[in-house]
Amino acid sequence: MSDLNAVLETAAREFDRSRERLFDLVRIPSVSTNAAHAPDCERAAAKVVAELQDMGFEASVKPTPGRPMVVAHYTPKDTGPKTSHFLFYGHYDVQPADPLDLWTTPPFEPVLKKDADGVERMRGRGIADDKGQLMTFVEAARAWISATGALPVKATFLIEGEEESGSPSLVPFLKANKAELSCDAAFVCDSNMWDQKTPAITTRLRGLINEEVTITGPRIDLHSGMYGGAAMNPIRVLGKLIAALHDKNGKVMIPGFYDGVADLPRATQKQWQALKFSEKKFLGSVGLSQPSGEKGKSVLELIWARPTAEVNGIWGGYTQPGVKTVLPSKAHAKFTFRLVGKQNPLKVRKAFQKFAKTHIPKDCKIAFTGEGDGSPATEIPENNPLIARTAKALKDEFGRDAVLIGSGGSIPICRYFKDILGMDSILVGFGLDDDAIHSPNEKYNLASFERGIRSWVRIIGAVAN
Amino acid sequence: MSDLNAVLETAAREFDRSRERLFDLVRIPSVSTNAAHAPDCERAAAKVVAELQDMGFEASVKPTPGRPMVVAHYTPKDTGPKTSHFLFYGHYDVQPADPLDLWTTPPFEPVLKKDADGVERMRGRGIADDKGQLMTFVEAARAWISATGALPVKATFLIEGEEESGSPSLVPFLKANKAELSCDAAFVCDSNMWDQKTPAITTRLRGLINEEVTITGPRIDLHSGMYGGAAMNPIRVLGKLIAALHDKNGKVMIPGFYDGVADLPRATQKQWQALKFSEKKFLGSVGLSQPSGEKGKSVLELIWARPTAEVNGIWGGYTQPGVKTVLPSKAHAKFTFRLVGKQNPLKVRKAFQKFAKTHIPKDCKIAFTGEGDGSPATEIPENNPLIARTAKALKDEFGRDAVLIGSGGSIPICRYFKDILGMDSILVGFGLDDDAIHSPNEKYNLASFERGIRSWVRIIGAVAN
Repeated sequence: MSDLNAVLETAAREFDRSRERLFDLVRIPSVSTNAAHAPDCERAAAKVVAELQDMGFEASVKPTPGRPMVVAHYTPKDTGPKTSHFLFYGHYDVQPADPLDLWTTPPFEPVLKKDADGVERMRGRGIADDKGQLMTFVEAARAWISATGALPVKATFLIEGEEESGSPSLVPFLKANKAELSCDAAFVCDSNMWDQKTPAITTRLRGLINEEVTITGPRIDLHSGMYGGAAMNPIRVLGKLIAALHDKNGKVMIPGFYDGVADLPRATQKQWQALKFSEKKFLGSVGLSQPSGEKGKSVLELIWARPTAEVNGIWGGYTQPGVKTVLPSKAHAKFTFRLVGKQNPLKVRKAFQKFAKTHIPKDCKIAFTGEGDGSPATEIPENNPLIARTAKALKDEFGRDAVLIGSGGSIPICRYFKDILGMDSILVGFGLDDDAIHSPNEKYNLASFERGIRSWVRIIGAVAN
Repeated sequence: MSDLNAVLETAAREFDRSRERLFDLVRIPSVSTNAAHAPDCERAAAKVVAELQDMGFEASVKPTPGRPMVVAHYTPKDTGPKTSHFLFYGHYDVQPADPLDLWTTPPFEPVLKKDADGVERMRGRGIADDKGQLMTFVEAARAWISATGALPVKATFLIEGEEESGSPSLVPFLKANKAELSCDAAFVCDSNMWDQKTPAITTRLRGLINEEVTITGPRIDLHSGMYGGAAMNPIRVLGKLIAALHDKNGKVMIPGFYDGVADLPRATQKQWQALKFSEKKFLGSVGLSQPSGEKGKSVLELIWARPTAEVNGIWGGYTQPGVKTVLPSKAHAKFTFRLVGKQNPLKVRKAFQKFAKTHIPKDCKIAFTGEGDGSPATEIPENNPLIARTAKALKDEFGRDAVLIGSGGSIPICRYFKDILGMDSILVGFGLDDDAIHSPNEKYNLASFERGIRSWVRIIGAVAN
């Protein structure tokens, strides 16, 4: 029997106990946003450390100004200079359970139940996000060590306790522990499968840059009778600017905006087409029927692989009930730009500023008050050998190709790992869209947990040298 | 000696006492917006009634749910069916005097002073707005009666007490007393001269109609990462609508918008050009340097004789400090349209609605929540013989042509006189732009008062059959 089969068998034998260990963790209400639960977060961190120490990891609870981190290292005995070293990331903290009255079972008393549709589901706060997910790689590592005496790779586990409250301690922690935490690559287990039969690797995350503009026309608010027709209205100027942002085919008209945006590779395009994603259902669920972005692109391409120029807020003049015939002095808008490929956030902001200025008549002024430096897109090159190996492992487990998907949003951890620790992140998770994370009656399918553990067993084997 | 010269001489002889009577009226703090001053308003009304009775008017204080009206009638003995009957309008109420500490003399202790520039000015709250102005026609009538034994016209004086607080009782009062108050025309004395040497008749007042729009894109607010590029942003749609309202030459692009808008008569155009109005100063005072309306039109034409489409307020999405990557469900804007000529308010609103709908993509909805029926423009035909007679009288007094000016705003009283009482209003006043009405140290030049009285003496003579 190959190592791999032995490890999978061990995982299967151990599975009921794996689930018991997960339930023990879910029983701790480690809500990070509520200071009253700080001791619970300490308990959860200590529990994870105890499990990892039990498995042979050098594990410890690392204090931060907020909730502690768990950091654990595993170095196999026969390590050579070529032994790969991977970081595995998850988070032990959970969302608050409110509103409690909508839960059908107590949120911190996890249960397993076969539902009417024959599917076995585990329920409890954090069972999917992210305790069930982080336990898939913990239990996979346990199986490897138990079956073969060792992990085939060097491993560092980083289990955070502030993911649900904006990770305030994360960046300083990564910076302060750069040498200890830098690995060849990171595996992040906090994402979903494409569907319950199709595994997924998230390889694209859009970047983000913001800008805020204030357009000033007259020095003071004016009476629209006395001045209307003579004095320029800054809302009208702002309207022209917003209207000029996109052409009638949804293309962003800022010169240079698309610099660094590559066409979607044909292979990816074909793979996404094969997903048979229902645009109708996706848009229909929010009351829409047609995509608003660049014409001729699929919705998946638009949200995963194309940049956007969005107005997130606008205000100016009189906005209370009734009529006020004011010709306002100022109009404001908040913009964000989702970025892909090699788009440079600060260059995009500059290009927008330059473009905006061309829409300001001589008499008006525009001021820019964007914040921060933004973040570029994260794209794991699809020819990264780790992607191929991970995909192969997932295919072996699920019997069908893992799809390389994107995420329209930005997952900061990947950015930090890249910028601070210099490593790519490979996002593999086993959640499903209906897991109700952040909602009452959060669940994680028993199959997600089981195949998650088995998948990590295979991935660890596949990425070992 | 002609009647006219006799009346002017009487007015001159009486002038010091006219000023004393004005000061007596100014001493009454008839602030209409403050209920504590309601008794003062009663006193002011009674004082005006007493003066008019003293002159031979049948005068009375008419109660309203708010401050009382003064209504007074004068019918000459030898009245025939062709004797003209005019209404004269003014208001005895005044603005509050706050902030008191900015007054150099007590607001309700009127003073006359020759200032360093040699100009004699009277100071006090309401001395210009409108007590000094209404007393010009009162004292002119007194001089006529005193010098010739009678007024040469039938006269009705309507002196309101709620002009500074929105005239809530006016419309019901006009409706309830329609027969008593309907005349051949109204003279309204509550406006300014063009400058201290140039008299003016206001013959154009713009109308007004409002509309409010709500554009809905997605059913709910969305995450701009998850949906950005796929879901239509209603702020973008609103921007396109606002941008489409005007072409690059400032012309309003709503089909049918200019129906009923006539070109400015050449004579009026020439007269306004001759005013040597400083566009630079007018715009410069509010921080602007170039007119925003239809290209090729003067600022005076733009604000007095051209319609506008204005956005008075706009809001949507996230408008608090910082960044929120929301793709909002709704965007809102408030619009008003200033109207001229024969533009029909409700037709303009309908035309805008139709136009707006053509800018709403299939997926979005637009709702309209404008209020009221609006008001059309008021234009006294410049060939109305009363205009010519009034202008001639003013020219006789000032030695230069009276200019026929417009007002960009709407003066409701003219509308009500037209709609309820069926009569045109002729607006003649002797205020100056620097009178500081509604501000501390309100003043009225002694020359305004003197020439105002003399002008009304001449106008009354000129419009008598």
